[in-house]
Amino acid sequence: MQEAGEKRTTRLEAFSDGVFAIAITLLVLELRVPEEEPLLEGLLGIWPSLLSFTLSFVTILIMWANHHANLAHVRNVDGRLLFANGFLLLFITFVPFPTAVLGRHLAGEDARVAAMLYAGTFVAINVAWAAFWRAIVKGRSYLAPDLPDREVASVNGALAVGFVSYVVAVAVSWLSAMAGVGLCMALALFWTWQSIRHHGGGHDHGLATGPAEQG
Amino acid sequence: MQEAGEKRTTRLEAFSDGVFAIAITLLVLELRVPEEEPLLEGLLGIWPSLLSFTLSFVTILIMWANHHANLAHVRNVDGRLLFANGFLLLFITFVPFPTAVLGRHLAGEDARVAAMLYAGTFVAINVAWAAFWRAIVKGRSYLAPDLPDREVASVNGALAVGFVSYVVAVAVSWLSAMAGVGLCMALALFWTWQSIRHHGGGHDHGLATGPAEQG
Amino acid sequence: MQEAGEKRTTRLEAFSDGVFAIAITLLVLELRVPEEEPLLEGLLGIWPSLLSFTLSFVTILIMWANHHANLAHVRNVDGRLLFANGFLLLFITFVPFPTAVLGRHLAGEDARVAAMLYAGTFVAINVAWAAFWRAIVKGRSYLAPDLPDREVASVNGALAVGFVSYVVAVAVSWLSAMAGVGLCMALALFWTWQSIRHHGGGHDHGLATGPAEQG
Amino acid sequence: MQEAGEKRTTRLEAFSDGVFAIAITLLVLELRVPEEEPLLEGLLGIWPSLLSFTLSFVTILIMWANHHANLAHVRNVDGRLLFANGFLLLFITFVPFPTAVLGRHLAGEDARVAAMLYAGTFVAINVAWAAFWRAIVKGRSYLAPDLPDREVASVNGALAVGFVSYVVAVAVSWLSAMAGVGLCMALALFWTWQSIRHHGGGHDHGLATGPAEQG
Repeated sequence: MQEAGEKRTTRLEAFSDGVFAIAITLLVLELRVPEEEPLLEGLLGIWPSLLSFTLSFVTILIMWANHHANLAHVRNVDGRLLFANGFLLLFITFVPFPTAVLGRHLAGEDARVAAMLYAGTFVAINVAWAAFWRAIVKGRSYLAPDLPDREVASVNGALAVGFVSYVVAVAVSWLSAMAGVGLCMALALFWTWQSIRHHGGGHDHGLATGPAEQG
Repeated sequence: MQEAGEKRTTRLEAFSDGVFAIAITLLVLELRVPEEEPLLEGLLGIWPSLLSFTLSFVTILIMWANHHANLAHVRNVDGRLLFANGFLLLFITFVPFPTAVLGRHLAGEDARVAAMLYAGTFVAINVAWAAFWRAIVKGRSYLAPDLPDREVASVNGALAVGFVSYVVAVAVSWLSAMAGVGLCMALALFWTWQSIRHHGGGHDHGLATGPAEQG
Repeated sequence: MQEAGEKRTTRLEAFSDGVFAIAITLLVLELRVPEEEPLLEGLLGIWPSLLSFTLSFVTILIMWANHHANLAHVRNVDGRLLFANGFLLLFITFVPFPTAVLGRHLAGEDARVAAMLYAGTFVAINVAWAAFWRAIVKGRSYLAPDLPDREVASVNGALAVGFVSYVVAVAVSWLSAMAGVGLCMALALFWTWQSIRHHGGGHDHGLATGPAEQG
Repeated sequence: MQEAGEKRTTRLEAFSDGVFAIAITLLVLELRVPEEEPLLEGLLGIWPSLLSFTLSFVTILIMWANHHANLAHVRNVDGRLLFANGFLLLFITFVPFPTAVLGRHLAGEDARVAAMLYAGTFVAINVAWAAFWRAIVKGRSYLAPDLPDREVASVNGALAVGFVSYVVAVAVSWLSAMAGVGLCMALALFWTWQSIRHHGGGHDHGLATGPAEQG
């Protein structure tokens, strides 16, 4: 029974990893090849796409690391967790779309709408992630025995910080698209830096502390 | 010999998982970035694409879970099963196409044709799935010893319900595209709900009961 | 050392599986959504794309099965085999392109050129496959001890039959595109049928006999 | 603890492999189907795309082999290595873009800009790779006990040669696009040849010597 549970967990992990790896690699398809000449001007003109490509890549990478850290506590997968995970992946596979919209419109008239959609996507991801984490924690009997309450509280706290941060990013985007996108970039950099600093020793729970949780 | 059989099963599973993961992630590529402004109007205008994206995502997720549940009974893979599985995957990789057609035409003149194509695709998937399940059951000697006849009958029943449901969805689509798509959505929600309710304990056969079987 | 060799083999297999799974799933992206109305007419009008999609899917599936059957004999991977495999994958990832060309032009003026490109791609794949198989056989010390000369001869024969078949398909395409494509379809069906018939028992070497070898 | 470290390493490897496999397979999507007729002329007209497709495929294949060779020394993954690897993958998933730009513009007025962007991408990859290798070496305690200083020096040397080679390729591209691309091709062929020659015996560290290191 335990073996079957671990096999199911491994599969869920492998499937999720596949989706993360594909979503992160598909981002490049949203970069349009400038057809016109001079080419140099065309390349410089797509800077918003290059910026949103880079930002989304880093953010998905952080989310991938956090997803692993969360699943490291799981020893079995029931239907609830499977669909909570699927709901989370739904929003993650969606990321290339707001990324493309941002790349196309950041230098245009409607930059603020694009930035709000972009930051709003991560608000939605935070909500889906909270449901996912709740499905893990509610099934406490499936957890590895070494999950302390402190860890649960830490992830909960990180999820709350992430939620608020992206709600603020949506609000800021309404005032200034560049400020909103800049805040998203600052968040990504902060969580990357925090992950590197906190986990030099490679704890078993990976990167599961800090606001990086919500990606 | 048994070890070789399990290795082959694992590979078939991994290959199928890869195809499911890619198909579910490719769906986002069918979402077109609105070029025109105002952007907000453009984004609201692609609601049929967002709806069909979400519906297909959830449906593929259910199918992925069921595919695993079916393969959990298999201990060896012969040529027949390999190609029956491949035939099923053929239709699953096809799903992004009717999804895109639905997204493009649901708000247009020919919405009913698009909805019939969409529901019809799942009729075809049901047929392919029945052949796949038959290839598993016919090779009973390859099955894990714990597959009861009750389970076989349960999957057969679920396949029949799924087939009829989607045939009805095709017929309903002929009358009203939105009603047909609404039925497809109701089916997906019902199977999701059923999977979560029935499998809280994470039985070894995963999600293999209920009409969710046919996705 | 042996363990390291098997680990390398597993990785090569996993990487190749990934490429096969992605290539087979990307085929759907070449199906264009008809924009115009009536939609039904538009859908019927893309029959060449649907046909080439199906044909390429089945052919890649056969090749995937054969690739596994060949690698089942390998116990270690050196640089030569790694690049021979990579060269083979180069042509396999290329398949979506002639598939798309065929879909676009089969009903047009230049159908014969499209069919020749399509069949010609599989001639090239046969050549690459022969190099790949030669890299396996030349490194006989890496093979599992159970590879009989008969098996080597069988794969060699299958490769020769495949090469000649696709050269004939190129020639036939020069006379009639539909006849050339029909021949490619007949080959795919024959190999599928042969694989199912010969391997009901699931031998350890998978599908490695018969012309299916060359896909 | 060691087991957990190896599990994390395996996951990083699997994720990276997925990204490599997807990036290498996505290259084909950049090949545009000629719409016009005569088709033969259209096919001949996209030779720059076919050339850049082939070149990028081979180069990514070499990088994949080297990535494995580097990770073969790793026994644990901390946050620093995870993000250093992610930073490297960022540039590798980017490769389809300069590949498409090169294919579109190599026969045009601005070929030199396209070639400089192409070669410049591999300069950036070399820098990212140096950071990745440094993250591995700095965490010496995580390395397999069998990593000799000679190996570290060899990879360092290969990275330096690769960096200089691609800087030269950028400079040469400024004078002549074809010469710059020709140099990139020569580098890929040389590293392929060297990998095959040096590693006939399949050493455990894979392809980790020689300038092939930097891909």
